[in-house]
Amino acid sequence: MTTSTINLNGFLAEARDATNAVLDEWCDRVRRDLPGDVGEAVAYSLSARGKRLRPALVLGVYRELGGDGDVVEIAAAVEVMHTYSLVHDDLPCMDDDDLRRGRSTTHREFGVTAAVEAGVAMVPLAARVLAAGCARLGLSEARLGKIGAELFHAAGASGMIGGQVLDLEAEGRPVSLDGLREIHRRKTGALITASAVIGAIAAGASPSRLEPVREYGREIGVAFQIADDVLDATATSQELGKTAGKDARQQKATFATLLGTEAAMAEAHDRIRRAIDHLGGGGIDSPLLCSLANFIVNRRS
Amino acid sequence: MTTSTINLNGFLAEARDATNAVLDEWCDRVRRDLPGDVGEAVAYSLSARGKRLRPALVLGVYRELGGDGDVVEIAAAVEVMHTYSLVHDDLPCMDDDDLRRGRSTTHREFGVTAAVEAGVAMVPLAARVLAAGCARLGLSEARLGKIGAELFHAAGASGMIGGQVLDLEAEGRPVSLDGLREIHRRKTGALITASAVIGAIAAGASPSRLEPVREYGREIGVAFQIADDVLDATATSQELGKTAGKDARQQKATFATLLGTEAAMAEAHDRIRRAIDHLGGGGIDSPLLCSLANFIVNRRS
Repeated sequence: MTTSTINLNGFLAEARDATNAVLDEWCDRVRRDLPGDVGEAVAYSLSARGKRLRPALVLGVYRELGGDGDVVEIAAAVEVMHTYSLVHDDLPCMDDDDLRRGRSTTHREFGVTAAVEAGVAMVPLAARVLAAGCARLGLSEARLGKIGAELFHAAGASGMIGGQVLDLEAEGRPVSLDGLREIHRRKTGALITASAVIGAIAAGASPSRLEPVREYGREIGVAFQIADDVLDATATSQELGKTAGKDARQQKATFATLLGTEAAMAEAHDRIRRAIDHLGGGGIDSPLLCSLANFIVNRRS
Repeated sequence: MTTSTINLNGFLAEARDATNAVLDEWCDRVRRDLPGDVGEAVAYSLSARGKRLRPALVLGVYRELGGDGDVVEIAAAVEVMHTYSLVHDDLPCMDDDDLRRGRSTTHREFGVTAAVEAGVAMVPLAARVLAAGCARLGLSEARLGKIGAELFHAAGASGMIGGQVLDLEAEGRPVSLDGLREIHRRKTGALITASAVIGAIAAGASPSRLEPVREYGREIGVAFQIADDVLDATATSQELGKTAGKDARQQKATFATLLGTEAAMAEAHDRIRRAIDHLGGGGIDSPLLCSLANFIVNRRS
């Protein structure tokens, strides 16, 4: 294990714990505001122990671009938005999945109605957590406006929801590699890109540093999905905490099925190299962000 | 018909047409971004011809507080958020309704999956339309941040979603009048209040004028729901463009069933009087906003 891996693990654990602590506070508030199953379903979904990779990206970029405040609540807002998408993706009318983050999916635990409502409740909740996070950090309302626009752009038609729709549309039809890249540029890539960009905006990055960060986010976002597809084909459900081998059973087009796992991973590594080049081109020298990018394709779950 | 009624009708028609024109443009964009049924379902939902009362409120408050720019896209953003709530309210797992704005509900036309996704897609779409609207009006990002926070606060747990959850929780249980007021302060009132407040923020209102506008919005918001309950009990489906007499058939607690239609309307009128008093207390002398408030309880659909 190299020094930078050790540091990365420490950083990831720290980011995860900080994010979980903030999300736990919000779960208490949500239970007060939303009585019954819907509030419980939101709290259940948010308290599942994920990798918290998107918050780590917000925190990492923020810190590496010179931010020295408490950005964790802004990072948690991104995770709330991500969690909404997981809850809806798992619904019977979508991917119909039983297992997520090592336990029952939200609709298996609380029923479809509560899961639908809990999911949709998390979208404005993300806005609320974000506003609280910007206030905590003392950011101006202008900065809140910019960050909110990034987050909601990533969630919307040109981002997650658009990708989900393209994905549903593609079911049972042949998909080209470019078509698949477009699906995942939106479905997975947009929010990962937004995470990096939000960290940079929060740190007050100039446009000349913001754009390289955006390109970095774009490359690692698609690389993340490629690694996800390969893991689905090669890891076990227990390792992943979600149902493995599903893509093959559903005969779904993925980077692994279209390219083969080896060529897919070669593309992922290529993207990581380009991501790091973008940072370098913008004068951002950050071992942490290089390690984070490498972790995205080398992770085991 | 008094002069002010004639002016109000003209104003409402103008606000409606302007809102519809902006929403039609966005429907085209949505169809491009979201292929297939989901995009069509969003466009179908947004193009149904509603009263566009919330946009009228944004436009009215903006104009009466001295705004002289083109605020209609901001007004349309509020209608997008409102339309999401209608689509989800009508779902089989919620109110299970077949008729809305004079035609089939979205899930009856496109199926439940597309309606769920279309609904949730409209939440970030509202953010996107809002950002475009603020840019069109030349508002600062700080103003966008403030307005976005109002809109998403109204949509979230302390607003529409919270009210919907309380409403579902109350089904089949006895509900007190205060409990009912709390449900509708959130479910209906929050977005109507936000509409008025957003108009005021867009116009650059000082806090001493913003708060009276908020109180005005709160009173007319609950009054709107009281009138809605009374209309459900007394008007026909054809008049309403949605299923009438449903509350009684579902034995649902409403202002009409708890108070009787006469006492309910007395409370509604009382609230309108107080709403207008709030404006007066803030030094806002506006025949248009008085007429709008009265229209809310005297409308026939």
